[in-house]
Amino acid sequence: MNDAATFPRNAWYVAAWSHEVGRREPLARTVCNRHIVFWRKADGAVAALEDACWHRLLPLSMGWLEGDDVVCRYHGLKFDHKGQCTLVPSQGKPNPSARVRAYPALEKFRFVWVWPGDPALADPALVPDLHWNDDPEWAGDGKTMFAKCDYRLLVDNLMDLTHESFVHATSIGNKHVAEAPMTTTHSGRTVTSTRWMLDIDAPPFWRTQLGKPGNVDRWQIIRFEAPCTIVLDVGVALAGTGAPQGDRSKGVNGRVLNTITPETDATCMYFWSLLRNYKLRDQSLTTQLREANAGIFEEDRMVVEAQQQFIDRNPDQPLRNLDIDAGSMRARHIIDDMIKGEAQTAAA
Amino acid sequence: MNDAATFPRNAWYVAAWSHEVGRREPLARTVCNRHIVFWRKADGAVAALEDACWHRLLPLSMGWLEGDDVVCRYHGLKFDHKGQCTLVPSQGKPNPSARVRAYPALEKFRFVWVWPGDPALADPALVPDLHWNDDPEWAGDGKTMFAKCDYRLLVDNLMDLTHESFVHATSIGNKHVAEAPMTTTHSGRTVTSTRWMLDIDAPPFWRTQLGKPGNVDRWQIIRFEAPCTIVLDVGVALAGTGAPQGDRSKGVNGRVLNTITPETDATCMYFWSLLRNYKLRDQSLTTQLREANAGIFEEDRMVVEAQQQFIDRNPDQPLRNLDIDAGSMRARHIIDDMIKGEAQTAAA
Amino acid sequence: MNDAATFPRNAWYVAAWSHEVGRREPLARTVCNRHIVFWRKADGAVAALEDACWHRLLPLSMGWLEGDDVVCRYHGLKFDHKGQCTLVPSQGKPNPSARVRAYPALEKFRFVWVWPGDPALADPALVPDLHWNDDPEWAGDGKTMFAKCDYRLLVDNLMDLTHESFVHATSIGNKHVAEAPMTTTHSGRTVTSTRWMLDIDAPPFWRTQLGKPGNVDRWQIIRFEAPCTIVLDVGVALAGTGAPQGDRSKGVNGRVLNTITPETDATCMYFWSLLRNYKLRDQSLTTQLREANAGIFEEDRMVVEAQQQFIDRNPDQPLRNLDIDAGSMRARHIIDDMIKGEAQTAAA
Repeated sequence: MNDAATFPRNAWYVAAWSHEVGRREPLARTVCNRHIVFWRKADGAVAALEDACWHRLLPLSMGWLEGDDVVCRYHGLKFDHKGQCTLVPSQGKPNPSARVRAYPALEKFRFVWVWPGDPALADPALVPDLHWNDDPEWAGDGKTMFAKCDYRLLVDNLMDLTHESFVHATSIGNKHVAEAPMTTTHSGRTVTSTRWMLDIDAPPFWRTQLGKPGNVDRWQIIRFEAPCTIVLDVGVALAGTGAPQGDRSKGVNGRVLNTITPETDATCMYFWSLLRNYKLRDQSLTTQLREANAGIFEEDRMVVEAQQQFIDRNPDQPLRNLDIDAGSMRARHIIDDMIKGEAQTAAA
Repeated sequence: MNDAATFPRNAWYVAAWSHEVGRREPLARTVCNRHIVFWRKADGAVAALEDACWHRLLPLSMGWLEGDDVVCRYHGLKFDHKGQCTLVPSQGKPNPSARVRAYPALEKFRFVWVWPGDPALADPALVPDLHWNDDPEWAGDGKTMFAKCDYRLLVDNLMDLTHESFVHATSIGNKHVAEAPMTTTHSGRTVTSTRWMLDIDAPPFWRTQLGKPGNVDRWQIIRFEAPCTIVLDVGVALAGTGAPQGDRSKGVNGRVLNTITPETDATCMYFWSLLRNYKLRDQSLTTQLREANAGIFEEDRMVVEAQQQFIDRNPDQPLRNLDIDAGSMRARHIIDDMIKGEAQTAAA
Repeated sequence: MNDAATFPRNAWYVAAWSHEVGRREPLARTVCNRHIVFWRKADGAVAALEDACWHRLLPLSMGWLEGDDVVCRYHGLKFDHKGQCTLVPSQGKPNPSARVRAYPALEKFRFVWVWPGDPALADPALVPDLHWNDDPEWAGDGKTMFAKCDYRLLVDNLMDLTHESFVHATSIGNKHVAEAPMTTTHSGRTVTSTRWMLDIDAPPFWRTQLGKPGNVDRWQIIRFEAPCTIVLDVGVALAGTGAPQGDRSKGVNGRVLNTITPETDATCMYFWSLLRNYKLRDQSLTTQLREANAGIFEEDRMVVEAQQQFIDRNPDQPLRNLDIDAGSMRARHIIDDMIKGEAQTAAA
């Protein structure tokens, strides 16, 4: 694991929530081992530069903003959003070679995305679909979790929700998840795993959301889009009211948006958001669900960080797979292919 | 020091006090770079497995116990004390190859012992004699000290007690220890160093234990058993009452049991216990002696950790030996031979 | 940067303030990767030995002083200021080979200096001139800053004071520093950069010191002496009263003494002192200036440590130079030559 890249660079990665990038202060983030400073211009567009002054390598994120430019805190060099140095105090016009690397960046679905790879390939159409996050038909909010692990351990975690029965035994899990069969399909850069649990007791969380007694049909539809975005379509409906056939009107439905950005080979930022298509104007419910979910994800963080610690101490010991890992195996396969493709391009 | 093993693996090492291994929660310990989970079965026997689930390497010590088995917190895989996986939820019967390494373990003298090397060689008769720890003719208690150093620095420390005069100048040390001659003998896997200090002032600690005025004959008989167990036979008797000739009836006698288990090349667990053959039912004295000794051993910890820090920064600088190091030199020689023997077996 | 030495060893480096080295306790310092213990003898002379006992490498700085010698805390070995072991308890006369390395050390200008390189070259005449620090015509005091960076980043910092305009924008800096031209000269082991700012607003600090209204002529004369000592001659005088021509009588004048001692390749000790030639007996002003300056230098520490962190993560990315770096480029050139010279001597 140490000798090879653990992530492709030619992909859009979430670097921040939209509200974290403003016009007052630059923001430092690390994406795929690239140290990047973000800020927002007067026209609202996001700028993203290598976070090191051309001159003496001080992080530009330690500086400040002037108009649309960022100013280095050390000697006052100023850089525009393209990375061009526009002012060197106490010297004439800056040399055109005085520039730092600019990264393609854009804002979509309440997130700021950056492309750490080849700029020529940065097609905005490749941003994964997370439209629920700013769709007026859906309500909800999320947070960011910083985890000390390879981002792929969180992909594994999300691709197999049977772990709910054990990691989250006291909250969202019960035995039905681990016992229900799952079907997995894939095409190109996506993997979809579907699990239906018919006529079961609702676990405590969903019981409360539904607000009705009686057994339920429960679903979990997991859709992975390479390299690191996973949308969970989850919900319950009263048993036998047609949910498996497409009629979810007697149920409640959520989307859990997950996108996990590698910072380095062994750390990552996990951006998640929890959306629902009911009680849209209940801000108190939004807050309650967000905070409850944050607590649940902390249970996952303990697990994946403990895995990473073992892997660090025993780099040759393999991860092994069970039937439940069909989805994560496929997802990792797609990621590996992307990494190999970039290595071949670089070698050529 | 970095290129070679610092410990043999074919030996019994103390991993825990007996009372630390129970039926409620698994216990994680590291012995000779092996991460091991311990628990107790209904019949009282101790189980010891590699502390990583066969499936995704989560430490099993993060899971819980069900009957005689341990359950992984991540996906609920269950393992028996032999390391065999006995249940994979949401899948059929586990594959027989789904197993983790089991380590020979046993309980003796109030300690749990583990054999991190070749199981075929794990002869229970090789457990070092620490019988004083549960002998009704002796009373006392001990603790565990976790030290950031090569365990051999603590072996050195214990094999030469002249350091009492300097490291423990204000408690058990006085100049007589450093001035008295020592004789050293050895055979096979043991080294014995004997020092008699005749007709001397008793140091404060022993004065209190003896409870009588007058000069004393003091003895320190240090017995090392490879790779890391050292029993100190220590005491004082009124001077001239025959202690050197074998009559200790006019004195007080203690045994300091020490066994230092390497966790890694640069950290160790030091288990010690302080036994006496007088005032056997005085629990208050037991507690007082244990706590006083814990304070004294903290002085040693400062010394050996400072040595380790210097060694880490200056790996090529040799330790040098004086006459007082005859015992530790011999002990290290035996340890080195065990390590070399294992390396030759591994190469063959 | 990782493969080559970052400092010459044949030079005098400040290891401590004079008052830090006493007769009660030994002091541990690291200079050029050498761990050194300092203490003071009865005649007032400073002793400096390798900070590791010949026997078992315990830092001698953990021991205590007896007369003019230092005693190891572990087994009581005693060493004189030449490094010769003079006592091994419980053994006969020490072997003459039982000795630790002694370093040339001396005391001058309220500092203790040490020569970590070849003792034969340790000429006291090579101590850089910091006489202002104990000259009765000057008053002031200083402190020590421990910084986690290559000492040369602090040399760079001091050789170019235009950073005052940005790093210290709210205290001593204003735009005039960055805008004023600078001239640089050099000879042998020194570099001198001079900047005059004529007929300008005084920045807040100097306004207060001068205590008079009106524009000023301000000067900054930076004198580097290899490898790491920089004296700043700084001050302001009422504009047009002849300061540039040599008449500073209508102004206030300070000397900022700076000497930065590498501890390791990535940490250093920065000793500084702030002297003035006015209000000599105002101890309250001395304290106020010292504390204010300590706060200003904390701003520099944040900058140089952030540079070092980026350099550590991106060792191949070059520092680049502007016109304002003429002084630091020349200073680094001299340092590099000293390092190369030592490498050639070592190879020969």
